[in-house]
Amino acid sequence: MASRFPSPVYERRIARAAELAAAAGVAGLVITPGPDLAYLIGSDAQTFERLSALVIPATGAPRLVTPRLEVATFAASAAGDLGVGFAPWVDGEDPYVLALAGLPSNPVVAVSDSMSAGHLVPLMSATGTAPMLATDILRDLRMIKDDDEIAALRRAGAAIDRVHARMGEWLRPGRTEAAVAADIADALIAEGHTVAAFVIVGSGPNGADPHHEHSDREITADDIVVIDIGGPVDPGYNSDCTRTYCFAAPPADVARAYAELEAAQAKAVAAVRPGVSAESVDAAARDSLAAAGLADRFIHRTGHGIGLSVHEEPFIVAGNDLLLRPGMAFSVEPGVYFDGQWGARIEDIVIVTDDGCEQLNKRSRALTVLPAQ
Amino acid sequence: MASRFPSPVYERRIARAAELAAAAGVAGLVITPGPDLAYLIGSDAQTFERLSALVIPATGAPRLVTPRLEVATFAASAAGDLGVGFAPWVDGEDPYVLALAGLPSNPVVAVSDSMSAGHLVPLMSATGTAPMLATDILRDLRMIKDDDEIAALRRAGAAIDRVHARMGEWLRPGRTEAAVAADIADALIAEGHTVAAFVIVGSGPNGADPHHEHSDREITADDIVVIDIGGPVDPGYNSDCTRTYCFAAPPADVARAYAELEAAQAKAVAAVRPGVSAESVDAAARDSLAAAGLADRFIHRTGHGIGLSVHEEPFIVAGNDLLLRPGMAFSVEPGVYFDGQWGARIEDIVIVTDDGCEQLNKRSRALTVLPAQ
Repeated sequence: MASRFPSPVYERRIARAAELAAAAGVAGLVITPGPDLAYLIGSDAQTFERLSALVIPATGAPRLVTPRLEVATFAASAAGDLGVGFAPWVDGEDPYVLALAGLPSNPVVAVSDSMSAGHLVPLMSATGTAPMLATDILRDLRMIKDDDEIAALRRAGAAIDRVHARMGEWLRPGRTEAAVAADIADALIAEGHTVAAFVIVGSGPNGADPHHEHSDREITADDIVVIDIGGPVDPGYNSDCTRTYCFAAPPADVARAYAELEAAQAKAVAAVRPGVSAESVDAAARDSLAAAGLADRFIHRTGHGIGLSVHEEPFIVAGNDLLLRPGMAFSVEPGVYFDGQWGARIEDIVIVTDDGCEQLNKRSRALTVLPAQ
Repeated sequence: MASRFPSPVYERRIARAAELAAAAGVAGLVITPGPDLAYLIGSDAQTFERLSALVIPATGAPRLVTPRLEVATFAASAAGDLGVGFAPWVDGEDPYVLALAGLPSNPVVAVSDSMSAGHLVPLMSATGTAPMLATDILRDLRMIKDDDEIAALRRAGAAIDRVHARMGEWLRPGRTEAAVAADIADALIAEGHTVAAFVIVGSGPNGADPHHEHSDREITADDIVVIDIGGPVDPGYNSDCTRTYCFAAPPADVARAYAELEAAQAKAVAAVRPGVSAESVDAAARDSLAAAGLADRFIHRTGHGIGLSVHEEPFIVAGNDLLLRPGMAFSVEPGVYFDGQWGARIEDIVIVTDDGCEQLNKRSRALTVLPAQ
């Protein structure tokens, strides 16, 4: 069980979620294990094929429907201190009917994004209605981080910065990406993460694939290497930071493209402030790279929200006209990718402040030259 | 990337899935990352908020809808060798519309159990229809293991048996459950698992909670300790085996209850053969414990299917009248739980054969006394 915030934090969140459900006109929220459940009761329970769900009616008391053999797990979460009623069930009973007890007939419910179809399809059979996504109701609550959450994200940012600061201990020519990744994973834990959630070591041509993880490829002295790493720090808020490394002064074409990337990332960070749209931050990075003739090299969105999930709202992407507000937390991570040759990415987590943003990752964003041996 | 079976295995599976979709009257299958996708194309891709889905129309060619930046990941799966068409998309496009291209309008589709509501709700908006679960179509295909799958499950069984054989190296009084669990996790990898998927160390009163994982509790010389461990072995088929340990001859009441448990587990295993129902295997264990006055101590179902998922069909539970057939693989794992005191469980994976079953776990099922130091 990860540590968690004091109980009143969760009491406020549950009460606010019920108000928002009522305002949205749904009968209630049905929240299965995942980030929404972590947000509402501080539980890091996993999803199983047996239904566990926090049901928050628009009016009335919240209840936790859970297999009898999971009661102890949930009692150890904040739910145990909050007066949330437990509705245990045993194999052979219908938990979907139990989840809807006390709601009107044929209720429209809102379900957590992470609920599996294996639960949602039978739940829909029990409601007889199409569900909404809880994200559409809890969006603002989850997206605007409070002071405790911002403090947790700062700790996560500092933890991942400490790992990047030690990169020269592990990353050098002659080692495989996988060996470097294993050392980084250990360091993520040593520096305060509860799980090494993701470790991307993209060397040479592998750096040109944004979602390459790591491979048995042996790193060479000429490689550009993308290191994109992160994971949760108690009580569950995630780090996510990318820096790009090499072992010798890069060729002129690489240096030029990297300088454009660094400028684009800085312009996107500078564009972040309350009242501007998410897509305008994306455009700031994209337009800057386009002006340098690199439009085709930047093949993904500029960023994603972060918190109890590594990827959550707001998404910093073309078409998202959401206006930024203080307390929003997201990545700013443009990249350039030269298929079959090399890639680079620079990623910081930022928090929107009253007049701009705070960057939670503070290490140099330059192409960092590490010792070759 | 985990290893995988030869391409013709996946070609046959995809063709058979399309036939079953046609027979079920759905327009097609929409399969997101998870066990069904591993089964169909040998991909261990993870789920992200960007849609990746294998679409298998009832008639027509299968396609893999995936973000452009995930194409390389999927090309490395069997899909790259199978002639499955790629339909890449970029941020800003609607992948749900893309997924339905070529299907009739308002198609009824069947979706993987593991698809998240975050994908299913917008997919339903695009179809305008209620989905089915792919499990209802692929059930038999997934549930009846072929010879390659049975061989993989045997390897997984042998791997977890090797870990249990070494239990005395780590499990002893004075150590915490968490420390023992960390050593077991390392041993799972050392003995051939690709991930230490779950490690339950339930000592003393913690053993009475079937889903306790592990804690900082220090194990004592008087404890009964439940060890329930497993994970995937290449190409992704899971082990899952529980044995119960102690450090001295147990008190008479413990010994008596354990002997009843051992008898109940043996009776359930003996009940497994083609043509009997899943619930009758559950009843064999349950009736045996009930006859010994232990009905209230056995608080969960007798077992679950296993394969690419740790928990899948068939479920060995009251109310499941499914008739067993050769090639089905599942756990037989009754337990007894004395709240606040101790618990015990015995779990083997079995494969239904033509005239009974094969037990994949071969270690002694007795309450095993380990050295106290």
